[in-house]
Amino acid sequence: MTGGHTDPTDPAGPAPKRRGRPSRTAGTTGPDARTRILEAARTEFAERGYDKTSIRGIAKAAGVDSALVHHYFGTKDEVFAAAIELSFEPALVIPAILGGGTDGLGERLARYFIAVWENPASRAPLLAIMRSALTHEAAAKILRGFVLRRLLERIAEALDVPDATFRAELAASHMLGIAMLRYVIRAQPLASAPPEKIIEMVAPTLQRYLTEP
Amino acid sequence: MTGGHTDPTDPAGPAPKRRGRPSRTAGTTGPDARTRILEAARTEFAERGYDKTSIRGIAKAAGVDSALVHHYFGTKDEVFAAAIELSFEPALVIPAILGGGTDGLGERLARYFIAVWENPASRAPLLAIMRSALTHEAAAKILRGFVLRRLLERIAEALDVPDATFRAELAASHMLGIAMLRYVIRAQPLASAPPEKIIEMVAPTLQRYLTEP
Repeated sequence: MTGGHTDPTDPAGPAPKRRGRPSRTAGTTGPDARTRILEAARTEFAERGYDKTSIRGIAKAAGVDSALVHHYFGTKDEVFAAAIELSFEPALVIPAILGGGTDGLGERLARYFIAVWENPASRAPLLAIMRSALTHEAAAKILRGFVLRRLLERIAEALDVPDATFRAELAASHMLGIAMLRYVIRAQPLASAPPEKIIEMVAPTLQRYLTEP
Repeated sequence: MTGGHTDPTDPAGPAPKRRGRPSRTAGTTGPDARTRILEAARTEFAERGYDKTSIRGIAKAAGVDSALVHHYFGTKDEVFAAAIELSFEPALVIPAILGGGTDGLGERLARYFIAVWENPASRAPLLAIMRSALTHEAAAKILRGFVLRRLLERIAEALDVPDATFRAELAASHMLGIAMLRYVIRAQPLASAPPEKIIEMVAPTLQRYLTEP
C-alpha cells in the first residue's frame, strides 16, 4: 500500500458520469433530476431488491425518461453502485474521518458506520444491498468491485501499516457483522444496546486493525 | 451472567426429540435414519433456501416417510435449527473450546469458526442460512431463537465479564462479517488470505471481547 491523498473531486467519486447526450425525449435535466433519479433508485433497490429493479422502473419512479437514467449513470449496475454510495457518502465523509489522523480513527469510523445504520433512510437500502449481495452474484460483484474497492482502498491508502487493505477489510467485516446481528437477525441484547455502548467496545478493535503495526 | 457448566448430555443439545410415535408407514428408523434426515435437510435448505424447503421434500431426499421427519424433529423450523447445529456441533465443540479456560480462548474460537467455514460441507448450508435469515423473518427468528441463544449463551455462561452475552455477540458478529466478506462477497485480499493470517489478526479481538473486564 502506498500512501496517497483522498481527493473529494476525484472522478471516481459520485460526480455524474456524462456519457453521450441525453435523449431528446428525456424529462427534466440538471442536478435536481440526477438527485431524484438516485433517490428513486435507492428506494427501488431497497423495496424490490437488485434483481427486480430496472432502469425503466427507476425512471418511472423519478418521473424522467429511461434515457436520462442511462445518461447520468450508465448501466443498471452503475446506478446500483451510485445508490449504495448515496448511503455512505464516501467523498464527503471519508476525508473527514481520515483527516483527523490516526488518533481516534477507530472511534470515528465506528461512529460513522453506526450512524449510517441507525438512520432509517440509509438503513433500508443498505439492508437491501446486503440481501442482494447474498443472493445474487451480480450484486455481490458490484459491492466487491465498485463499492468496497472505492471505500476500503481510500481508507487503506491513508494507513501506515502492512496489509492495509486486508486490515480495512477486517474492520469493515466487523461493522457488517454487527449490522447483520443488530438490524437483521436482531439478536438480543445487541439489537437494543445503545449505539454509544457498541462504539465504545468496537472502536479499540478498529483502531488496532487500522493502526497497530 | 452466572457461571455455569456446559453439559454434552444437555437435552438442549442435538439429541433427537421424540414426539409421539412414528407413523406405521415410516421408512427405516433408528440413528441411521435420523442422520440421513438431518443431512438431507441440510442439503435441501442449502440448495433451495428456507422458504422452498418442505418436510415432504426432506423426507423424499432421505428416503423416509414425512411422519418420521416430524417424529424426530417436530416442525420445519426445528429441522432447520437442527440442520444449522449440524454445522456447528455445539455440544461437542463448545465444551472443548471453553474447557481450556480463558487463556487462548480467542484463538480457539477464531480457529473453530474459520474451520467450520473453510469446510465446504458445512459452508454451503451456512451460506444458505445467512441468505434465508436475511430474506425471511421466519428464518431470522430461528437463528435468533434456537441457534444464537444456545450457542452464544453457552459461551457467555462460561465467561467472567460484565455483559457476557453482549460480548459474545460482538465476537460472533465479527466472525459472521468475515464470513460474508470472505466467502460471499469475496473481497480481496481477504477472500484469498490464508486462514492462519485471519486467525492471527482476529484472535486478540475475540480474546478482548470475551475476557477483558
